[in-house]
Amino acid sequence: MTAGIYASRQKLNVLMVTKSFGGQMAEKAVSIENYPGFQEISGKELIANFEKHLRKQEINIENDSVVEIKKEKEIFLILTEGRKQFQARAVLITSGTDPRRLEVLGEKELIGKGVSYCVTCDGPLFKGKDIAVIGGGNAGFEAAIFMTGYAKKVYLLEAGSDVKADLINQEKARDLRIEVIINAKLKEIQGDNFVESLSYQDKEGTIKKLKAGGVFIEIGYMPATSFIKGLVDFNEKDEIIVDPRTNETKTPGLFAAGDVTDIRYKQIVIAAGDGAKAALAIYGFLSKQK
Amino acid sequence: MTAGIYASRQKLNVLMVTKSFGGQMAEKAVSIENYPGFQEISGKELIANFEKHLRKQEINIENDSVVEIKKEKEIFLILTEGRKQFQARAVLITSGTDPRRLEVLGEKELIGKGVSYCVTCDGPLFKGKDIAVIGGGNAGFEAAIFMTGYAKKVYLLEAGSDVKADLINQEKARDLRIEVIINAKLKEIQGDNFVESLSYQDKEGTIKKLKAGGVFIEIGYMPATSFIKGLVDFNEKDEIIVDPRTNETKTPGLFAAGDVTDIRYKQIVIAAGDGAKAALAIYGFLSKQK
Repeated sequence: MTAGIYASRQKLNVLMVTKSFGGQMAEKAVSIENYPGFQEISGKELIANFEKHLRKQEINIENDSVVEIKKEKEIFLILTEGRKQFQARAVLITSGTDPRRLEVLGEKELIGKGVSYCVTCDGPLFKGKDIAVIGGGNAGFEAAIFMTGYAKKVYLLEAGSDVKADLINQEKARDLRIEVIINAKLKEIQGDNFVESLSYQDKEGTIKKLKAGGVFIEIGYMPATSFIKGLVDFNEKDEIIVDPRTNETKTPGLFAAGDVTDIRYKQIVIAAGDGAKAALAIYGFLSKQK
Repeated sequence: MTAGIYASRQKLNVLMVTKSFGGQMAEKAVSIENYPGFQEISGKELIANFEKHLRKQEINIENDSVVEIKKEKEIFLILTEGRKQFQARAVLITSGTDPRRLEVLGEKELIGKGVSYCVTCDGPLFKGKDIAVIGGGNAGFEAAIFMTGYAKKVYLLEAGSDVKADLINQEKARDLRIEVIINAKLKEIQGDNFVESLSYQDKEGTIKKLKAGGVFIEIGYMPATSFIKGLVDFNEKDEIIVDPRTNETKTPGLFAAGDVTDIRYKQIVIAAGDGAKAALAIYGFLSKQK
């Protein structure tokens, strides 16, 4: 969205192809306290502000999904799910990430029946229940903290021997009496029509069972890159490798910014800054071509 | 300020040494339209929001100026104008830039007497006068656009054969009947007690005189780095060279972010993003030391 604002202010002819705005952030009701200028704001509200800002610009927005990007000579061809085709002299990929699955027994079968990847979407449905959050990073802790507002008891399971969340989140979790269990590798989610319990393996290899009426999986995200092959290189995390000064990929004219790239820290303000950088670099790239 | 927010949220023991917040931006009444989330806001207001956000954190702020940074073994020593000395295990430089002088005849002598580097500070004093802005970048155009609200006639002089401002600013300038003169190298500013005229050399080498009751010099900024020598490398623009992935300089533990660095684009949201990046990299650096 920042790249859209910048590119249109540079008077480029901009087409944005997206089915929605804000990605992960748009779904979060939990408050965001680290986007400078807003002391405390929900992800939903912040994204609404960004979207208003974007729509104030002269910009074309196509409500569709990209399924393939090809390059023929100096022109990129963009094919969409809605079977449209667009041409562009430069492309910026800002497709972000999708939630990562655990791939354990029962997970897939119980999605929507107590297994969820989004506390903000589904949290209120678990009022009064005991629930478990899987993942000891910031996302896991924030999900667990959020769930204390609904659930009777909140467990947080981390597979490793250490949680990776910010200390501020760890302190909040302590204050809210979230039960953090480390060295807990989830093995199975059980339940007939709805989640009833889960099994995890502890440090010694013993399988333990935990009663829980819901499981929120917060073990990170995978870069959303299914539509782009061949034209970019990926790192070991499947993130698009970019030149950090310009956000250009290995293909001239093809740029990427935000969480879909190999940028080290995934933060709203960092993604926004890199979106601006990429738009200005694209302006420079197109100016040189003329 | 973003780095301060991030570092304190990481529970680092943070000291900020600064005499004021926001640098160039804090002085700008002209509206900022490209910081995502705020469709239109003055620099002053935006910085006030940032400052409120910063002061909400647990952070120590020292109202002083750094005059020297030294490293002794693994510890940095920070010496201030107020003759205080601080110690730190990591340092982040975010000192930004100072306005660049033209170094032409009459410039120094007439500062405060019609020569200014800040339209927002001094603009209203030139009501009804003819004034000239020197510099054809965004800063020059924005200053000229701002001055149309006060001056009778606004000239904009650019030394090169092309202006570098965003097209959107060029269009506004056209609509506001700002007279843009390219290939105009300023040679002298004349006036007894106050600016009366200026002389510039045109493409053919002819000296031309222009009557003007004020001159605003907007030819860019110099990185503010007088207090740091030896520990960092500089590029040809005297900007501090950093690793763009972490914002670390060549000295371990010494970081820099924002306009003082060799980052290619100088923009609020980019500097904010890099400040966040640097704070998270410092957190990583200190965690490894423990």
